[in-house]
Amino acid sequence: MRSAAQLIRRQGVSGTGMREIVTEADAPRGSLQHYFPGGKEEIVSDALLWSGDVMARRTRRCLGELKSRAPSALLASIVDTWRRELTEERFLAGCPLVAAAADTAATSKQLRQVLRRAFDGWLEPLSESLVDLGVPLERADNLAIVVIAALEGAIILARIRRDLTPFDALIRELGPLLDAAAPQGDGAA
Amino acid sequence: MRSAAQLIRRQGVSGTGMREIVTEADAPRGSLQHYFPGGKEEIVSDALLWSGDVMARRTRRCLGELKSRAPSALLASIVDTWRRELTEERFLAGCPLVAAAADTAATSKQLRQVLRRAFDGWLEPLSESLVDLGVPLERADNLAIVVIAALEGAIILARIRRDLTPFDALIRELGPLLDAAAPQGDGAA
Repeated sequence: MRSAAQLIRRQGVSGTGMREIVTEADAPRGSLQHYFPGGKEEIVSDALLWSGDVMARRTRRCLGELKSRAPSALLASIVDTWRRELTEERFLAGCPLVAAAADTAATSKQLRQVLRRAFDGWLEPLSESLVDLGVPLERADNLAIVVIAALEGAIILARIRRDLTPFDALIRELGPLLDAAAPQGDGAA
Repeated sequence: MRSAAQLIRRQGVSGTGMREIVTEADAPRGSLQHYFPGGKEEIVSDALLWSGDVMARRTRRCLGELKSRAPSALLASIVDTWRRELTEERFLAGCPLVAAAADTAATSKQLRQVLRRAFDGWLEPLSESLVDLGVPLERADNLAIVVIAALEGAIILARIRRDLTPFDALIRELGPLLDAAAPQGDGAA
């Protein structure tokens, strides 16, 4: 799944051919057809759900490793994983969910539903983490949407600019917003 | 340009063929080759620059038509144009700049540079408008990046969910953030 996701992150779904997936996965062509009788749509679906799981687990790990109980520290930690990733990938690879949404949300009902599951599976642990850090329930869902939306947009801007400044803007502006939403937490300290 | 942009918004650059552009534009194939000797990359470049111009003009028009001097009113007005657009397009078409970024930022230097120009041409009037509404210069650029990043992410989420709730989250959370950044403006009232 990692190899299909890696191709989608760089060039979208339409720009990624089955042959390329086979080559990148270093698998014999027959075996892909055996394991994925649904063809490209099935492989892409699995790659997107796998990617959503990665984001969800990453969010929980960031929460688990936090040294401060400020929601801004969670934001900084999540943003940091993307900073490192874009640097390692030399800005060539973005988020596979956005890449797939851009070119398939209008054309494939199956992939759109898979994307919704993947994004929901990422929003949920983020919202729960914010609550864990003292953000009231009624704001946590909205703030999780704003953080993920802004992060996805920042990844796009960073790829286009080939610099990390969009992430700095996010941390500077959304960090204090999150902390102010958790007045009982350490975030206000 | 509108017809090429319209195709990119729905299915990305890789998913859009020259033949489709010709059909959608209702133009004889020869004429496109005459006006765009650079082929698909040239047409896509022009469509993206045209789209960036649309966003920039839209931002200035929203500022000009504001009834309140609160930055949150500007945000609401910009978000509203996208709400209407996604509703009219029945969530099938997103932002052409994001669609193009997703599948070409890694593969075409020319398109990446065009996308940077298009985004810069949108960020600038937004940042200037925020300053006009009382946001200090040193925060306006960062806030413009956050607003555009979050808006782009929200467009993606709205397309996937086929509902407008991501825009509501943006207005609810980013509106007060913008107003608080303009303490001298009417926004604080």
